[in-house]
Amino acid sequence: MTETHPGAALRVAMIGHGFMGAAHSQGWRVAPRFFDLPLEPEMAVVVGRDAAKTEASARKWGWAEAATDWREVIARDDIDVVDIVTPGDTHAEIALAALAAGKHVLCEKPLANTVTEAEEMTAAADRAAAAGVRSMVGFTYRRVPATTFARDMVAAGRIGRIRQVRAEYLQDWLMDAEAPLTWRMQKDRAGSGALGDIGAHAIDLTEYITGQRVTTVSGIIETLVTERPLLGEGQGLSGTASTERGAVTVDDLALFTGRLSGGALASFEATRFRTGRKNALRIEISGSTGAIAFDLERLNELEYYDATQPETELGFRRILVTEHDHPYLAPWWPTGHMLGYEHGFSHQVFDFVTAIADGTQPHPSFEDGLHVQRVLDAVERSSASGSTWMPTDA
Amino acid sequence: MTETHPGAALRVAMIGHGFMGAAHSQGWRVAPRFFDLPLEPEMAVVVGRDAAKTEASARKWGWAEAATDWREVIARDDIDVVDIVTPGDTHAEIALAALAAGKHVLCEKPLANTVTEAEEMTAAADRAAAAGVRSMVGFTYRRVPATTFARDMVAAGRIGRIRQVRAEYLQDWLMDAEAPLTWRMQKDRAGSGALGDIGAHAIDLTEYITGQRVTTVSGIIETLVTERPLLGEGQGLSGTASTERGAVTVDDLALFTGRLSGGALASFEATRFRTGRKNALRIEISGSTGAIAFDLERLNELEYYDATQPETELGFRRILVTEHDHPYLAPWWPTGHMLGYEHGFSHQVFDFVTAIADGTQPHPSFEDGLHVQRVLDAVERSSASGSTWMPTDA
Amino acid sequence: MTETHPGAALRVAMIGHGFMGAAHSQGWRVAPRFFDLPLEPEMAVVVGRDAAKTEASARKWGWAEAATDWREVIARDDIDVVDIVTPGDTHAEIALAALAAGKHVLCEKPLANTVTEAEEMTAAADRAAAAGVRSMVGFTYRRVPATTFARDMVAAGRIGRIRQVRAEYLQDWLMDAEAPLTWRMQKDRAGSGALGDIGAHAIDLTEYITGQRVTTVSGIIETLVTERPLLGEGQGLSGTASTERGAVTVDDLALFTGRLSGGALASFEATRFRTGRKNALRIEISGSTGAIAFDLERLNELEYYDATQPETELGFRRILVTEHDHPYLAPWWPTGHMLGYEHGFSHQVFDFVTAIADGTQPHPSFEDGLHVQRVLDAVERSSASGSTWMPTDA
Amino acid sequence: MTETHPGAALRVAMIGHGFMGAAHSQGWRVAPRFFDLPLEPEMAVVVGRDAAKTEASARKWGWAEAATDWREVIARDDIDVVDIVTPGDTHAEIALAALAAGKHVLCEKPLANTVTEAEEMTAAADRAAAAGVRSMVGFTYRRVPATTFARDMVAAGRIGRIRQVRAEYLQDWLMDAEAPLTWRMQKDRAGSGALGDIGAHAIDLTEYITGQRVTTVSGIIETLVTERPLLGEGQGLSGTASTERGAVTVDDLALFTGRLSGGALASFEATRFRTGRKNALRIEISGSTGAIAFDLERLNELEYYDATQPETELGFRRILVTEHDHPYLAPWWPTGHMLGYEHGFSHQVFDFVTAIADGTQPHPSFEDGLHVQRVLDAVERSSASGSTWMPTDA
Repeated sequence: MTETHPGAALRVAMIGHGFMGAAHSQGWRVAPRFFDLPLEPEMAVVVGRDAAKTEASARKWGWAEAATDWREVIARDDIDVVDIVTPGDTHAEIALAALAAGKHVLCEKPLANTVTEAEEMTAAADRAAAAGVRSMVGFTYRRVPATTFARDMVAAGRIGRIRQVRAEYLQDWLMDAEAPLTWRMQKDRAGSGALGDIGAHAIDLTEYITGQRVTTVSGIIETLVTERPLLGEGQGLSGTASTERGAVTVDDLALFTGRLSGGALASFEATRFRTGRKNALRIEISGSTGAIAFDLERLNELEYYDATQPETELGFRRILVTEHDHPYLAPWWPTGHMLGYEHGFSHQVFDFVTAIADGTQPHPSFEDGLHVQRVLDAVERSSASGSTWMPTDA
Repeated sequence: MTETHPGAALRVAMIGHGFMGAAHSQGWRVAPRFFDLPLEPEMAVVVGRDAAKTEASARKWGWAEAATDWREVIARDDIDVVDIVTPGDTHAEIALAALAAGKHVLCEKPLANTVTEAEEMTAAADRAAAAGVRSMVGFTYRRVPATTFARDMVAAGRIGRIRQVRAEYLQDWLMDAEAPLTWRMQKDRAGSGALGDIGAHAIDLTEYITGQRVTTVSGIIETLVTERPLLGEGQGLSGTASTERGAVTVDDLALFTGRLSGGALASFEATRFRTGRKNALRIEISGSTGAIAFDLERLNELEYYDATQPETELGFRRILVTEHDHPYLAPWWPTGHMLGYEHGFSHQVFDFVTAIADGTQPHPSFEDGLHVQRVLDAVERSSASGSTWMPTDA
Repeated sequence: MTETHPGAALRVAMIGHGFMGAAHSQGWRVAPRFFDLPLEPEMAVVVGRDAAKTEASARKWGWAEAATDWREVIARDDIDVVDIVTPGDTHAEIALAALAAGKHVLCEKPLANTVTEAEEMTAAADRAAAAGVRSMVGFTYRRVPATTFARDMVAAGRIGRIRQVRAEYLQDWLMDAEAPLTWRMQKDRAGSGALGDIGAHAIDLTEYITGQRVTTVSGIIETLVTERPLLGEGQGLSGTASTERGAVTVDDLALFTGRLSGGALASFEATRFRTGRKNALRIEISGSTGAIAFDLERLNELEYYDATQPETELGFRRILVTEHDHPYLAPWWPTGHMLGYEHGFSHQVFDFVTAIADGTQPHPSFEDGLHVQRVLDAVERSSASGSTWMPTDA
Repeated sequence: MTETHPGAALRVAMIGHGFMGAAHSQGWRVAPRFFDLPLEPEMAVVVGRDAAKTEASARKWGWAEAATDWREVIARDDIDVVDIVTPGDTHAEIALAALAAGKHVLCEKPLANTVTEAEEMTAAADRAAAAGVRSMVGFTYRRVPATTFARDMVAAGRIGRIRQVRAEYLQDWLMDAEAPLTWRMQKDRAGSGALGDIGAHAIDLTEYITGQRVTTVSGIIETLVTERPLLGEGQGLSGTASTERGAVTVDDLALFTGRLSGGALASFEATRFRTGRKNALRIEISGSTGAIAFDLERLNELEYYDATQPETELGFRRILVTEHDHPYLAPWWPTGHMLGYEHGFSHQVFDFVTAIADGTQPHPSFEDGLHVQRVLDAVERSSASGSTWMPTDA
């Protein structure tokens, strides 16, 4: 059992070591240097299938050990936290084992590839919570200071009653029809395509900032390039393409409308074909007395419209979310000095470690992750049924 | 019959004199001063129901005469063109009469309030065309130089094959739940709400720039504020509110997805509740080798992304569409001197008069307007049927 | 003497018919259609040196007559207003004659090519004013609604005490070293280059919005391309180039700092070589409790920063200056519908005609124009003296 | 002597531990995790005057030891690098001692508080270089990928011949006249105010991107608030104010023009009173065939204008400088994932360590820093002499 007296070590095992592994490593390394953490994370062991590659990752990212068998690592007494950064098809098995072993679990999003898996994980997380074991899912875009501040503004009533929402996550990295087929384009590995990979962020961010849930959806998902060159040597985004081709089994584009629990409609778009948009997770929330808008491509900014100002002075203002009193920012740099993408992960570590020490439920919980999974599933069902409305929690 | 020898007069009667009347008047007055028109428009007569008000409009806007009976005016021999700027419920009757009388007709959008009316009008326009009588519908946002240039760029292949489209028309002028109930909120007068008033522009602009048609749609329309104070004294947007309330019978928000004839999906939004957005008709077209984006709130600009540039130099560029060689701009000001909203109407006059003189079909034709009407109708039918997909030309 | 009873005609003679002639004509034509003018402008006669060209301008722009001798026109009893849109070297002679003849005078900026001329003109204007004759200089950028509103905001104390100012007018139309030598590049015709042509606007706008005067300056002016092809056939910006070359005798770039009468420093830039900037008259005024920023390339917008808002909500807001209650906008279009460049001229007509009818001094007065001329002169003297500080009113 | 075989340790002592200490610590910690460094930095010892505070900094930022006597630390054999992050008045003494002791030196900007000190330091650096000892000054904004890429673009001729430059560094953190008097407002500690603190960055960035030097300057510096409350308890920006007041002995605002060695004029502004601007280091370089513009408040973006594109397609494009092939970015995140302010320091470590291992001169060199110091000095001399032009290298 994790010791939670101030300054006690919190020994972390990270399962997986792709792009997300680098980001999580940076979070574990940096958070303790800027935040006063109640426990001291130790980057104990990184786990991967390939021994040599995993060893290289351990050296590069500063993990004390490398290992190849995650079951063995989970069984160790000297591990307190299991941080899961593998593709979605393995989340359930690892998380269930880790929770059973009494380890706190941080699991990358999406929580799982299916609702059934996510339900099992949530049930296990609930049981573990009763025994003081914490679990959390990694929707880190909640932890960009500007989005957290947006949530605070909405919660404080600064935009009034929510009237409508637009949320979109726009990328274009698949616009080259000859880009190779990676695991992110295979349904059995990735669960879904743009929908689950980036649409999931748009859903979670909407639910987080509004404090409401998507209750029903109508939409369509579509694959724009249905066949791509198989990946040859290497793996990941930069792998070279072979001459053979394979089927893309996930969506490239998802367009859907959801009804929020508060009654408002929210329209969503997730795409890997929006030419020229690189990482535009954007959300705009229109309320009865104001509005807020965020764009991840300008992540240190928040647009705020205060409809209670005099009529001739109305306008979206560009707030640089870099003030000491903005969320997460007190330990960082002076005003006007920007944070990068990676510190969503630093802030995640801060929140997760704090919750472990305090014995409280961290957020987003597995239940939050399950809900997002249910929305994704409902979108797929709606699409398969001619865009008829599907409840998300049926 | 209109004389079309160079310099012959083109005598115009305008039916209606609200906000659109001011804009059309400005178009008729200004176009001949900047463009070399083959015929000379004469602002002959303006027609309204209230004699005093119409007389005042005539004086203010420079029409030679005021009249109260449009049928009489249409019957006059000394009228060549009938310009219809009344609410949508009267378009059909007036246009049919005008075409029957051999007058060229310019009709504000939407063409009509129902598909049936629009079909009759289109049939009449086709018959009239055979006799050399021209008709056109007033989607003036096609004639903002930046949107015309966008069409030219797409037609020239500068963004490649169209992959997806986002089109939205965002306003917030109804966000005050106590704003009074005007004719624009009554289905019998306006036909529909945000959908037909501004969504129609988003549809037409999409079809114009892409050169494709929306073939099927799935969507939802919704009224956010269902009851409003009845209008007391005065008329139009600035009328005062009475203490009685009436039902809003049109939509405030329309969210729909359409399939374009070329295969791509286009997602649409029309709303009068997007807090802080005043007149944001925006369209972004993503192609296989580039993208373009337009926002009416910055109407002299066009964003263009050329995906064929070197990878490290890719980016949306902000083109100031104020060059001599941009569409419509040769007779205007030097580079960098902005045009206003109103010159969509000047350009409309230029194109309409030119088509009359040349004996060619002006665009958008009544058939184009009918098609937009069919899309609007399909959206309403889809919304009423749980967002199932509806063909637009069934 | 002009009759000033309501609705009396105000007969205008415009001297000159280049680019500014088109803009002024549009102002005279359009203003009466949107504003309730106390007098009725009549576009009586346009005057130019070339009879055929002037006749063509008269027809094109709607002037009743064309004439070639401005002295004769000024001598006519049936002319009330002389509107001077010729190059700067002729302003003084025409204005002095017109004032002597008891005509109200609207004179394009810069008021004159030299301080001495401007002083004579101002003295004449003062004498004429005593006899009820009005004069005004045409710094129309004061009459963009956003700049007028900026002045109102400053005057109302909404940015507090002025701490510093940045004003710049950036163009790039001379960046092509082979662009031909027009009158705007000849000192004897144009007086100066970027300094007087566009820098004058930056100075006037600074003085107008701040309500302060530039009292001393230090700066440098420079010609970047010193020799250009002589203009062959045609005239104006679009004339073709010949094979001979001539000396550019005016500046291409002016950089200077001024001390305002309230104590703050203002830094200025006027340039025709700022690559990619087409018509960027920008001003940013930093005050003790706020700031405002304007850019003519987005002339319907004003950026406002209210430093009295809560610290976490500070930011420049983009006000769309298109509301009914914004300056000049009541008679125009609904919210969110943009005005173009040309309506500075419409608003100028409104203000000028109103002042004539009311018997009040219109602004900017010749004295205001003289002051700008003195600033321009001081900049040239400072530049010639190694950038030492020169008083503007010595 | 530092061992430079691959993988050898590079033991670093950091002198000072304020805001810059945090940033440098992060650079030393993070760089080895993303870049393949030829030597392994060890965060050996941090030095400060106050033992307890220094000890706390060591723990917080991960330095192995804390010490209070920099002379002792410099004398140690087990230190290879001295990293100086103290206020400017101590740079010279520490750097000279460190170089004399054969330590590689990384010195924060400005290099020194006076030209004389900077000259001594440069001479010492030159002597040391002969013995294989490296020195570098910390203008980290050269190492934002977008600015480095801007330099590459200019060097590759992508904007042609440089015609003019605008460089500004705008902040507003002193706009509160009651903000307390810290060392940054005292000439004996800070050397100068806005001029040296942030103007130095504008100068260095201009020289870096253009590849040219400022040869003469004319300008003015000014203190806007001349007296402030003395700092009470605490130190640094967040110290509380006492009731006594002291004189501000540095400038708040610097406005100057410089002549570049290539002939073009560059205008500069450094200010702590530009209301609403938080950290706007902006530079725009106008060339004969293009332009580039950068703003540190959007540090992952570069605006590029390619004047060789077709005339109707000209425009500033917003390049997201987040591609694998952009400078420094290969080891970081996928396209569209933003870097923060701090990684200028990571990239600085990468370049500095690489130069040490390779035995080459890192940049910016002390000589580069000396040159900036000479420009600062010339600005002060010009200001004191009525803004007459002063050579920078006299």
